[in-house]
Amino acid sequence: MADLSRSVPFDRSQFEELMKKRFFFSPSFQIYGGISGLFDYGPPGSALQTNIVDLWRKHFIIEESMLEVDCSMLTPHDVLKTSGHVDKFCDWMCKDPSTGEIFRADHLVEEVLEARLKGDKEARAKETGATNVAVQEESEDKKKRKKKVKEIKVTRLDDETVREYEFILAQIDNYDGQQLTDIMKVHDIRNPANNGELESPRQFNLMFQTQIGPSGGLQGYLRPETAQGQFLNFNRLLEFNNGKVPFASAMIGKAFRNEISPRSGLLRVREFLMGEVEHFVDPQNKEHDRFDEVAHIPLRLLPRAVQVEGKSEVVEMTIGDAVKKGVVDNTTLGYFMARISLFLEKIGIDMSRLRFRQHMSNEMAHYACDCWDAEIQCSYGWIECVGCADRSAYDLTVHSKATKTPLVVQEALPEPIVVEEYVVEVNKKKFGPRFKRDAKAVEEEMLNWTQEVKETKSAQLASQGRVTVVANGVEHEVDAELVTVEKQQRKEHTRTFTPNVIEPSFGLGRLLYCLMEHSFWARPEDTQRGVLSFPAVVAPIKALIVPLSRNAEFNPVVRKLSAKLRSLGVSNKVDDSNANIGRRYARNDELGTPFGLTVDFETLENSSITLRERDTTKQVRGSQEDIINALVALTEGKMLWKNAVEKFGEFNATQDFIFWLDTSIIQTIIAELFV
Amino acid sequence: MADLSRSVPFDRSQFEELMKKRFFFSPSFQIYGGISGLFDYGPPGSALQTNIVDLWRKHFIIEESMLEVDCSMLTPHDVLKTSGHVDKFCDWMCKDPSTGEIFRADHLVEEVLEARLKGDKEARAKETGATNVAVQEESEDKKKRKKKVKEIKVTRLDDETVREYEFILAQIDNYDGQQLTDIMKVHDIRNPANNGELESPRQFNLMFQTQIGPSGGLQGYLRPETAQGQFLNFNRLLEFNNGKVPFASAMIGKAFRNEISPRSGLLRVREFLMGEVEHFVDPQNKEHDRFDEVAHIPLRLLPRAVQVEGKSEVVEMTIGDAVKKGVVDNTTLGYFMARISLFLEKIGIDMSRLRFRQHMSNEMAHYACDCWDAEIQCSYGWIECVGCADRSAYDLTVHSKATKTPLVVQEALPEPIVVEEYVVEVNKKKFGPRFKRDAKAVEEEMLNWTQEVKETKSAQLASQGRVTVVANGVEHEVDAELVTVEKQQRKEHTRTFTPNVIEPSFGLGRLLYCLMEHSFWARPEDTQRGVLSFPAVVAPIKALIVPLSRNAEFNPVVRKLSAKLRSLGVSNKVDDSNANIGRRYARNDELGTPFGLTVDFETLENSSITLRERDTTKQVRGSQEDIINALVALTEGKMLWKNAVEKFGEFNATQDFIFWLDTSIIQTIIAELFV
Repeated sequence: MADLSRSVPFDRSQFEELMKKRFFFSPSFQIYGGISGLFDYGPPGSALQTNIVDLWRKHFIIEESMLEVDCSMLTPHDVLKTSGHVDKFCDWMCKDPSTGEIFRADHLVEEVLEARLKGDKEARAKETGATNVAVQEESEDKKKRKKKVKEIKVTRLDDETVREYEFILAQIDNYDGQQLTDIMKVHDIRNPANNGELESPRQFNLMFQTQIGPSGGLQGYLRPETAQGQFLNFNRLLEFNNGKVPFASAMIGKAFRNEISPRSGLLRVREFLMGEVEHFVDPQNKEHDRFDEVAHIPLRLLPRAVQVEGKSEVVEMTIGDAVKKGVVDNTTLGYFMARISLFLEKIGIDMSRLRFRQHMSNEMAHYACDCWDAEIQCSYGWIECVGCADRSAYDLTVHSKATKTPLVVQEALPEPIVVEEYVVEVNKKKFGPRFKRDAKAVEEEMLNWTQEVKETKSAQLASQGRVTVVANGVEHEVDAELVTVEKQQRKEHTRTFTPNVIEPSFGLGRLLYCLMEHSFWARPEDTQRGVLSFPAVVAPIKALIVPLSRNAEFNPVVRKLSAKLRSLGVSNKVDDSNANIGRRYARNDELGTPFGLTVDFETLENSSITLRERDTTKQVRGSQEDIINALVALTEGKMLWKNAVEKFGEFNATQDFIFWLDTSIIQTIIAELFV
Repeated sequence: MADLSRSVPFDRSQFEELMKKRFFFSPSFQIYGGISGLFDYGPPGSALQTNIVDLWRKHFIIEESMLEVDCSMLTPHDVLKTSGHVDKFCDWMCKDPSTGEIFRADHLVEEVLEARLKGDKEARAKETGATNVAVQEESEDKKKRKKKVKEIKVTRLDDETVREYEFILAQIDNYDGQQLTDIMKVHDIRNPANNGELESPRQFNLMFQTQIGPSGGLQGYLRPETAQGQFLNFNRLLEFNNGKVPFASAMIGKAFRNEISPRSGLLRVREFLMGEVEHFVDPQNKEHDRFDEVAHIPLRLLPRAVQVEGKSEVVEMTIGDAVKKGVVDNTTLGYFMARISLFLEKIGIDMSRLRFRQHMSNEMAHYACDCWDAEIQCSYGWIECVGCADRSAYDLTVHSKATKTPLVVQEALPEPIVVEEYVVEVNKKKFGPRFKRDAKAVEEEMLNWTQEVKETKSAQLASQGRVTVVANGVEHEVDAELVTVEKQQRKEHTRTFTPNVIEPSFGLGRLLYCLMEHSFWARPEDTQRGVLSFPAVVAPIKALIVPLSRNAEFNPVVRKLSAKLRSLGVSNKVDDSNANIGRRYARNDELGTPFGLTVDFETLENSSITLRERDTTKQVRGSQEDIINALVALTEGKMLWKNAVEKFGEFNATQDFIFWLDTSIIQTIIAELFV
């Protein structure tokens, strides 16, 4: 990692300027005015994304023999109705009926109350005659966001109201629609622009709707997560894994969320890349057999118990200890948390700005029973980048029920077990004639009784000679000669169970953004230029090749060198533009290119070349062959830069000065001197 | 390549059975009844796709330093209105008003006329008393397709009608809505199920519609191609390339097409993966500077001129000759055609079933001015898998006009040129007072005159002292004292032009399907089992590791071997199931795994292992180190199998027999013998 402590303080506008200038990303459809929440990645952003995806695939899918799938994004209504997304994947919005403007209710409440608190602070300050108003520091995000509240009214609030506002703001993420409606009524929250009254908040489903097939076709949505396709293919995946759990499936793909009013740049977008793992496990045995390999890894944890006390200090401990102490529930959850941490470290996330926060029970998604988020700190605050949820048997159970398809594991028992249970048996011959067209419904009702009910009914039959059954809304009396309910024994050779699911779910776009921020710094000696210190393994391009000047003699060497590196898997870029070498290197520091190779006149004589490292700007020199070998080792992480310096010695040639000038001009001058 | 001539004849149902059994792909949402035109890829299908994408990226993007981008799928209406997709990306459908059933008009006409022709043939056969009716062979596709026409009526047609039907069928892809309407009327085409009259065909737009943002939000679509995002980012890309053309951008991503009634399995789906290259080039210079590298490559061409004559014989020639003879327009188009061919060969497409067919002028997409399709022959016929179109300046021009944003290249001229042209100059002082609120419109109208008009008006001003200008729908007389239109000279230092676009566009899903068909065969000695002979570079998994039996002693060796191979980038799978080795190998032949490693008792003694090749089923044996090195070389294409056999010698151990039995059973027998 680069020594970022040398950097000048992080400045988001400088960072964003670089992102735009070097086309890491930019708003989609910009020449048409742009659409908020949609972004395009340019060449360096795309390459970074590809490298992160590639590493993700190696780190998770290949390393753990996960079963990768690629499922449809278009999803029919029924699937998402069952999964709960049609009813619960919503935000609350409210509309100004006079202007048609739409607000996200929780965001509006937050902003209005914050503005009132600010006005109160100013009023109090005036009262006491204080000149320095200690207004709470606003996050960068809030500063940049397009404000709905344009001006702060200096109005004194009573202490009780201040406390109430503060309480609401602390809880803002947890309110449902009714609570938001109440708050808006009680605290008279209106459209800040025109003071107009707003309609009550109503649910807005965050899925993009569409029709599949010709008009009047099938109602569908764009998937809100990649998980559902994996659940629906459970039986095929289980078969692929020879019928055994645990196993994990995985998918990398886009998902969609129709945000009411997107903000925070790349962090809250309408179309995003996810990487999701669904690890299917026996609910009675959530042990992971490779946990030993990661038990020593330290994590920074923020457990629920700490948050409940209103604190936010992280607890640092090894994942082994965390599981032992019961902070983390089981070794499978623990294994994935550690593997997530290793992955984030590998791509270059600053580990001191990573924490695992356990969800509070009221903030979990509708399907989860436990969840630890890997949160990364950036200029927008702590951002959830990876969720690691225990979805229990929720999804498989609901889909199985809705489709009447068993989604279960059958495990051969070491030896058969004897099961004793009440069994309903119907006298078919007499049953039909007696109940006629209700016969089937009555029978089904009885077969579906729970063991407890069957026990009661069995006793009733014995004592009263009949039982009452409600079917098709009608009460039927069933005599003992038509049915028996008796305890029976049977041998079971297999155990049938619905597996639980542990789900590490990556917002790869968010990770990419945090990584770019963490990698950004500026040299104190050149504060105008940024540097992006990506690890070589994810850097968009591994090496820059620069001929000393535009002298045509360099072309064949440069072309050969570029082809050679490509064949060795080292992506590279040639910059033979007019700019001086210093400028060309600085340009590539902004692209995060870790290494640079200079071809000069000495190269033509003895084939030696110079290798420059981005973060230290130090150089070494050696034969082409040696330098290429070192470069491959460096990009593959098999050699450190300091080892390269040890091997070749630091290079400080006297002609270094010339590097910083456009040598073609010098040659012209020299040529003219000798005319 | 495997020697497929050994194979039994291709049988699509056997092939599809294997695809399903080994979960290469399957219909999406199957437990919910499935949605036609949507498919999920299982683990081997996904891995194959990933490897093809990876190779595509290396072969095109990395090798040619293309600028990769990743743009949004959600696209606002205005963009696709401009591009022409809102108006022209349509099929014709017609509805039975009594049942609501919807037909794709061209498909229905095709099917009904084919059925009538068949009925006619049978009738004629009966007349002549022929017993063997020579009914034209139907393609596999047509056989499988869900027929709308359930029964063939044996009815004699007159010769004129037969000729007319045949003519219509030959042209079926070229009719527009009015023509389809006429045909349906003239030939009385009705709903085959109930003989009900159908509504006239109407256009059905093939894009999936959605709303972006909260209700009443912005009309949007899912992109029908990945190209538009690249065009909209043209200025940023040009800047990234230091303002110079030619350069190419590229994108790999999903696109969508809301088919009326999808058919042909993976070949015509509603959601598909594309790889598109947009090569921006100076329209005055379409030479490609790397054409020399490919000029010698032979291609099988089906030029327009041949098709016009009603023939379909391919012409085989090198791409160098094709360009020289003017068959292919320019070296850039030629370069990409050759590079496409090389790519298809690399992934394992059978070159004898590849041809490049030039589009007829009436079948080109609305934006194209020339197009060569790489078509691959499979059991569904010749399938368009890669389009290589010259989109000329169409897209950049329309987007530039719609957004008033210049999308052009400015090229410094070697020396300035003098341009002579008529220039309109307005006397601002007098102009405003004279025309008042029409002044601006009148001025703009005049400034927008073409050179030809300006010349005429200049003459009029000179002769009549006034000109007539129509602005805001009103005629205005403009006197010579208010305006001058005179010839002027000016120096131009730059040339400004809109680049042309050459676009190789890959349907990666179609390629994947064709590759699977081309790779499939069955050994004459085991016709029930299929083999998928993928080249190692794209094979889902490179190596299978099989311990001889479930003996626990093998576990550490197997685990170490697997980890070692993974670290060397060789993806592998361990099969330590109960099945005998022969069965385990056969299973992996069906997955297309090219190599197998056997760990046996000798491995425990002297660490030697056996390496098996999929297509020949031959084996070699050597030390673990040597075999691993050979395996890496084999999977990277640096060694051929025959070289491996030469190096190690073919291995035919006497214990081979044991391989074909379940050795754990044998051990049990042996153990029992000695009790």
